[in-house]
Amino acid sequence: MRGLWIKGGIKRHHPCFPPVIKNGGSLSPSLKSFNNLVPQFRPPILGFDLPEIWKPLHTPSLSSHYKQQQQVSNEPIATVIDGKSIAEEIRREIAIEVRKMYVSIGKVPGLAVILVGSRKDSVTYVCCKEKACHEVGITSICSRLPEDSSEDDVLRAVSIFNEDPSIHGILVQLPLPHHMNEEKILNSIDIQKDVDGFHPLNIGNLAMKGREPLFLPCTPKGCVELLIRYGIEILGKRAVVIGRSNVVGLPTALLLQRHHATVSTVHPYTQNPEEITREADIVVSAAGVANLVRGYWLKPGAIVIDVGTNPVEDSCSERGYRLIGDVCYEEASRVASAITPVPGGVGPMTVAMLLSNTLDSAKRYYRLR
Amino acid sequence: MRGLWIKGGIKRHHPCFPPVIKNGGSLSPSLKSFNNLVPQFRPPILGFDLPEIWKPLHTPSLSSHYKQQQQVSNEPIATVIDGKSIAEEIRREIAIEVRKMYVSIGKVPGLAVILVGSRKDSVTYVCCKEKACHEVGITSICSRLPEDSSEDDVLRAVSIFNEDPSIHGILVQLPLPHHMNEEKILNSIDIQKDVDGFHPLNIGNLAMKGREPLFLPCTPKGCVELLIRYGIEILGKRAVVIGRSNVVGLPTALLLQRHHATVSTVHPYTQNPEEITREADIVVSAAGVANLVRGYWLKPGAIVIDVGTNPVEDSCSERGYRLIGDVCYEEASRVASAITPVPGGVGPMTVAMLLSNTLDSAKRYYRLR
Repeated sequence: MRGLWIKGGIKRHHPCFPPVIKNGGSLSPSLKSFNNLVPQFRPPILGFDLPEIWKPLHTPSLSSHYKQQQQVSNEPIATVIDGKSIAEEIRREIAIEVRKMYVSIGKVPGLAVILVGSRKDSVTYVCCKEKACHEVGITSICSRLPEDSSEDDVLRAVSIFNEDPSIHGILVQLPLPHHMNEEKILNSIDIQKDVDGFHPLNIGNLAMKGREPLFLPCTPKGCVELLIRYGIEILGKRAVVIGRSNVVGLPTALLLQRHHATVSTVHPYTQNPEEITREADIVVSAAGVANLVRGYWLKPGAIVIDVGTNPVEDSCSERGYRLIGDVCYEEASRVASAITPVPGGVGPMTVAMLLSNTLDSAKRYYRLR
Repeated sequence: MRGLWIKGGIKRHHPCFPPVIKNGGSLSPSLKSFNNLVPQFRPPILGFDLPEIWKPLHTPSLSSHYKQQQQVSNEPIATVIDGKSIAEEIRREIAIEVRKMYVSIGKVPGLAVILVGSRKDSVTYVCCKEKACHEVGITSICSRLPEDSSEDDVLRAVSIFNEDPSIHGILVQLPLPHHMNEEKILNSIDIQKDVDGFHPLNIGNLAMKGREPLFLPCTPKGCVELLIRYGIEILGKRAVVIGRSNVVGLPTALLLQRHHATVSTVHPYTQNPEEITREADIVVSAAGVANLVRGYWLKPGAIVIDVGTNPVEDSCSERGYRLIGDVCYEEASRVASAITPVPGGVGPMTVAMLLSNTLDSAKRYYRLR
């Protein structure tokens, strides 16, 4: 377990840790000098952007750390939180709503997906989203642009969908080719159609008491929907969110706080992440690091939501790899009271929430209930 | 210490706790039934808005809880974080910058303050802000409207300043009279002039990695500026923010995270707030409850930033009251390694940061450095 895990779960050997701070070309002190702040040297008031590189702990062996720990079963005891079947339930509910809409006003929700290039995984995701739309009666249009399209080509595609009254949700499949400004393109989406909920105005309204975002980002919404549908109490509980990405970690922490959990966010610069995580009644891991969260990171009886989908080599699989979570399932299922599997946990919920956001957007547009 | 403390520190006796959930007219279960969520009863995905009512703990007597605790001095040991003199230093720096601006382009920054009604405290704050502007060479204009003005009167005042090129910052003194929609009025301020930084787009950009808000809310900016100027390390430290208001608690937590602290937010629904607070290297309290944070809430050596300014009766004072913080200073100064006093801590920094934001806004407008 030496070396570093780069987000995405591919192991790299790295000459030095801590890494050198990248801060947009300005002075780049090592973390060490950053740590020893003195008044003469002042970081910018917003802080430095640092790379999100997770340093794995030298974890004790299964047996030894289980010895340390009480209340650990030799058998899996955790309830499996079945995201797949909950997502199917939600999609059935959405299909009924879409039908109702069609019967009452003769319209259905429309989702536009913009796919640039032909990354295998992106193509797979887009197909799966289109299929899901089709199943519930939502119209989906996919605009496929070649890898070498210009930023303006993409902006043009967005603006066409912005103007189209039959489109209520617009999705730009990420990642975009490197020659494009992702922020500029995402910001060009009409906020009324930003079903991904990534617009900073949405995030601000999610964060602020008394405000309401137009859309909740799909994965965080899916995680909390799972907790709610399983009747898991959130109010007053300690929640730890591992990872602070704009698309998952951050909005999940904000949403859990709106449910009045006491939320702590763990990130690569957290000291003793396992200790903090062990305090949590609810753990949501979105670090993107395979098996980062071991059994001894968890309080016995904790609820574990594993957002990670990390590719690991698997010669038995025809693709040559398989997807596993951030959480070491075998260990966690012997400590936690409930856990989401990977695959079949959060993944299907994310797609269901995209449909739900598209439906909500259409209802808002047509002023229905 | 029985009864409840309502934000602002005025003690009220309350027939029942937990309070009944207010959720905009929809079903109002008690917290108890809310706590026992079952799939049949589902809270809205955004959660319920609940009143921020702090329930004081039955704190052990000074002597007894000090016995429990090691490493507690009988004398104050904490360095006093002198916000007053740091604020003066910052104002001197701002005065120099303003002078430079005037010399180079013949312009100075302009701040407009809108004051509705004649609340004593609001009038005091506004005067103090005008005085501070004057001292550093920032032009300030105050538009005073009568208590019974209409919302449109205020919106008109805002739009006049939005159009005025000599005004770079607009401030609406809160609270507004009850017959006005605060959100609507604040949102009408040109975001380029929103020197309070309360606009959700600003908060979203503060929350999101890789984004930059136009302005940082003044009090959080002041708190972190104090840490930075005292050379206090933030990266990797455990930080606890007590309170989650849109104007202080929330943006402070977001800003500390941008400095790579591991942040936990404590609020009225947090169980065992004292235990969580005791884990923190850095504690920022913005609960608005006099003496909420006792000495035994703190880890020995912790850094304490006290944002609270709570009125308590004081017959000796000619006003009949005096202002004290959220933190029991006498106890905390014997446990913490550094602490801000009230008054003379965060308060003066907030005004200095308002000047700093106004200067930054003018520089941006005139495209200076």
